[in-house]
Amino acid sequence: MSDETDILAANAAYYLAFVTADFPAMSRIWADGNVSCIHPGWPALIGRQAILESYRQILSNPNPERIDPRNETVMVEGGEARVLCVEFVSGTALAATNLFTRVGDAWRMTHHQASPIAALVEEPVPQPSSRRLN
Amino acid sequence: MSDETDILAANAAYYLAFVTADFPAMSRIWADGNVSCIHPGWPALIGRQAILESYRQILSNPNPERIDPRNETVMVEGGEARVLCVEFVSGTALAATNLFTRVGDAWRMTHHQASPIAALVEEPVPQPSSRRLN
Repeated sequence: MSDETDILAANAAYYLAFVTADFPAMSRIWADGNVSCIHPGWPALIGRQAILESYRQILSNPNPERIDPRNETVMVEGGEARVLCVEFVSGTALAATNLFTRVGDAWRMTHHQASPIAALVEEPVPQPSSRRLN
Repeated sequence: MSDETDILAANAAYYLAFVTADFPAMSRIWADGNVSCIHPGWPALIGRQAILESYRQILSNPNPERIDPRNETVMVEGGEARVLCVEFVSGTALAATNLFTRVGDAWRMTHHQASPIAALVEEPVPQPSSRRLN
């Protein structure tokens, strides 16, 4: 697979861990070392321990919100990658930046930041293959 | 100077260009190539042209807002650097991420994202050296 395919897969794995509230998977996705995370409305969290503790709290929410990532753009510079995407969460849109670093054969997350987009961004609605007219 | 000192100087130069509305300086600060920018409330801008156009608009505001960066944290991996800081803007606090890449002897910006911090963050207030009691 190309780097870009691998990076998009790592990005998708992050959101899958989120929506399935899979803390062990989320823990594997984050790198060791220089990691940082800015959840919407939060100050920056720095270091693996603080970040994983925040996800432990967020993923323990009994009514988790659905997160749907769209419009991914990948940039790669050697062993460092950046993914920009739009997160649709309960009808609102957030602009997200996810950084990854290559660790062996894997791409692991080193930074996440998501911030609400003020302007109206329409969530794509799946089109029905047919519809009945009354 | 150490890398960290140089990176902090590049970060400070970014905010100085902002508060002095110095578009040529802002233009020099941004790298070529893979660049992205997420202003508060904006969707992601990708590419040098779109980013510089946004700064041209923002810096042409006749009533610019004061931006005061604090609490800088620097992370360096080879020729790539990340600065996390808190921006105080007109009494509100934003969590900012600034990425830089080494280009020759300089560190040039490759990404900026700032997002409002919902929780109260107090802006440090300079203490008067003396005050008169009535």
